[in-house]
Amino acid sequence: MPTVHRVFNFAAGPAVLPVPVLEEIQRDLLSLPDVGMSILEISHRSKPFEAILAQADADIRKLANVPSHYKVLFLQGGASLQFSMVPMNLLDAGRTADYIDGGSWAEKAIKEAKKVGSVNVAASTKAENYSRIPTDAELKLTPGAAYVHMTANNTIEGTEYKRLPNVGDVPLVSDTSSDMFSRPIDVSRHALIYAGAQKNMGPAGLTIVIIRDDLIARAAAKKATLPTMLNYAVHAENTSLYNTPPAFAVYAVGLVMKWLLANGGLDAMARTNDRKAAKLYAEIDRTGFYRGTARKEDRSLMNVTFRLATEELEKQFVKDSTAAGLDGLKGHRSVGGMRASIYNAFPEEGVDALVAFMKDFERRNG
Amino acid sequence: MPTVHRVFNFAAGPAVLPVPVLEEIQRDLLSLPDVGMSILEISHRSKPFEAILAQADADIRKLANVPSHYKVLFLQGGASLQFSMVPMNLLDAGRTADYIDGGSWAEKAIKEAKKVGSVNVAASTKAENYSRIPTDAELKLTPGAAYVHMTANNTIEGTEYKRLPNVGDVPLVSDTSSDMFSRPIDVSRHALIYAGAQKNMGPAGLTIVIIRDDLIARAAAKKATLPTMLNYAVHAENTSLYNTPPAFAVYAVGLVMKWLLANGGLDAMARTNDRKAAKLYAEIDRTGFYRGTARKEDRSLMNVTFRLATEELEKQFVKDSTAAGLDGLKGHRSVGGMRASIYNAFPEEGVDALVAFMKDFERRNG
Repeated sequence: MPTVHRVFNFAAGPAVLPVPVLEEIQRDLLSLPDVGMSILEISHRSKPFEAILAQADADIRKLANVPSHYKVLFLQGGASLQFSMVPMNLLDAGRTADYIDGGSWAEKAIKEAKKVGSVNVAASTKAENYSRIPTDAELKLTPGAAYVHMTANNTIEGTEYKRLPNVGDVPLVSDTSSDMFSRPIDVSRHALIYAGAQKNMGPAGLTIVIIRDDLIARAAAKKATLPTMLNYAVHAENTSLYNTPPAFAVYAVGLVMKWLLANGGLDAMARTNDRKAAKLYAEIDRTGFYRGTARKEDRSLMNVTFRLATEELEKQFVKDSTAAGLDGLKGHRSVGGMRASIYNAFPEEGVDALVAFMKDFERRNG
Repeated sequence: MPTVHRVFNFAAGPAVLPVPVLEEIQRDLLSLPDVGMSILEISHRSKPFEAILAQADADIRKLANVPSHYKVLFLQGGASLQFSMVPMNLLDAGRTADYIDGGSWAEKAIKEAKKVGSVNVAASTKAENYSRIPTDAELKLTPGAAYVHMTANNTIEGTEYKRLPNVGDVPLVSDTSSDMFSRPIDVSRHALIYAGAQKNMGPAGLTIVIIRDDLIARAAAKKATLPTMLNYAVHAENTSLYNTPPAFAVYAVGLVMKWLLANGGLDAMARTNDRKAAKLYAEIDRTGFYRGTARKEDRSLMNVTFRLATEELEKQFVKDSTAAGLDGLKGHRSVGGMRASIYNAFPEEGVDALVAFMKDFERRNG
């Protein structure tokens, strides 16, 4: 087989996947072993697919140490649909949901929740361009709130929670789309976790939800009124097979989970991700030519954001880095600057290549 | 490369795909030509993906002769989510939607619509086990209805509309999940068409919606209240890129559309599908050993349903046919019997193999 040309892909998501996973998908694309059909053709009611789904569920449980009173759901629609499903299922009339507004995605989640019910913004760093995570001391929580919503990692602004906020007994709901399974996660301190798969977990088109049984019970009470497809209880009762699931994405995520387990699990991922991010932040901080945009204590290990002195220089950086095979470094259109997304599957040699490029770019333009 | 073992896959969906499409996906799985990344890793905001999406859109328009005042949307959630999105977007307070209850999927659509607003069941063949399509004469339509909803092909009961119902000027909404692009479709006589991709169009995880501009305008008026992800106008305005789309499924459907165009388009598909279905129905009708379940005039070209004299004989048929490499012939659990799903990509030699098997089975058990 000819050598395949692959660039270093710093995109924020969909993002780079482990090459061994891609190779297994490729190998079996025409026919799964002992099945005689492609994963793209297989009935979701067949025994082989049920086994694929059950294995993905078991591996997620093993990886993240998911307690038995939580269900893992395989859904569609991305985190953006969860912005609505969370309040539609969990925010009853007469109650209030607390939202921590720590980034652009939290802002979108708040907008959707307000369509459904009463929302309290417990804290916001919007006035500081979301350059930091709100502190516990800043939180103005509602006693007896329906839940508290947080965003674990801000893909756009490059910040990330280093420890969970203290919300007492109120159910904690976390959007972990961009750092799920990049480090250990204490599922037992959450009531609901959701994440689009397309950063650390697999291809786009699948959303993982980990939900505690008492929240499923809240959803079950809404079967007569809530659209069936938006009801967590329906998906839990049908083991994510109420209707046809995105079978290929479930399969691909399952392979990534297997890869994570084979490579040491979440502790090992955290060590590698720490090291990768530290190299980049060290280069950003080295001379002042680059400027990190996030408060140092809140810097994301997944999305490393930085700026240069002028927008002209930033354009040049994007152009030159792309030409050098470092793809996708342009920051989100809403904030500008640069962003290096370095998820689990992003190779450390790609980080080294970027650091070397940054040094060279500074020499040429400093 | 070793010969790949593939069975004849009669599953109702996800279902068989064209082998040349699978081979192209396999070839480029590690890196799209001139891109250096897998389709599973590519940013949905990148130029290569935008080109893939635009080409899929253009090819669907070409295939089905979609007029310019319709948009093609690439969504998630399957037809089951459309059961809710249709009334949420189109059924305003004080108005009534007419539903033609011609099968199990229509029944589900009705259940969801009733959660949203006023529904009139214009006709139903439920009392006849949905063994036929309601006739125009039976329809009790509401003057000035918000829309009329129909199901073009009933996957479970094996019936299919041969010509569209006459609904006058009322917008016609059709669930075409299981026969979309198996034959020519007059888009201009519809206001909205939706279909899960996993029968004739591609892998599971993508829903195609073709919607007329005046219906998009109805949806646009609901932006303040409707969940953003469920609003047709939002997806239309963002060319299906409001959030991360199921990029791989869009790519795969695009390849199937290219394959359809290269193989003569919808007229050619209809001729082949006619011939394939005729062979099976001729065998079913040959001696009375097999019994078709659908009224002859309404027989589906996609899902050929039949029974045998006893359930014991049916079990034997499933067992023997599976052993013979004819997979997925067991009927839907809600109706029993046998079902041969023979979508576009199902090879005619598979139909011939089934006919031969049926003759042999009759000889051995008749």
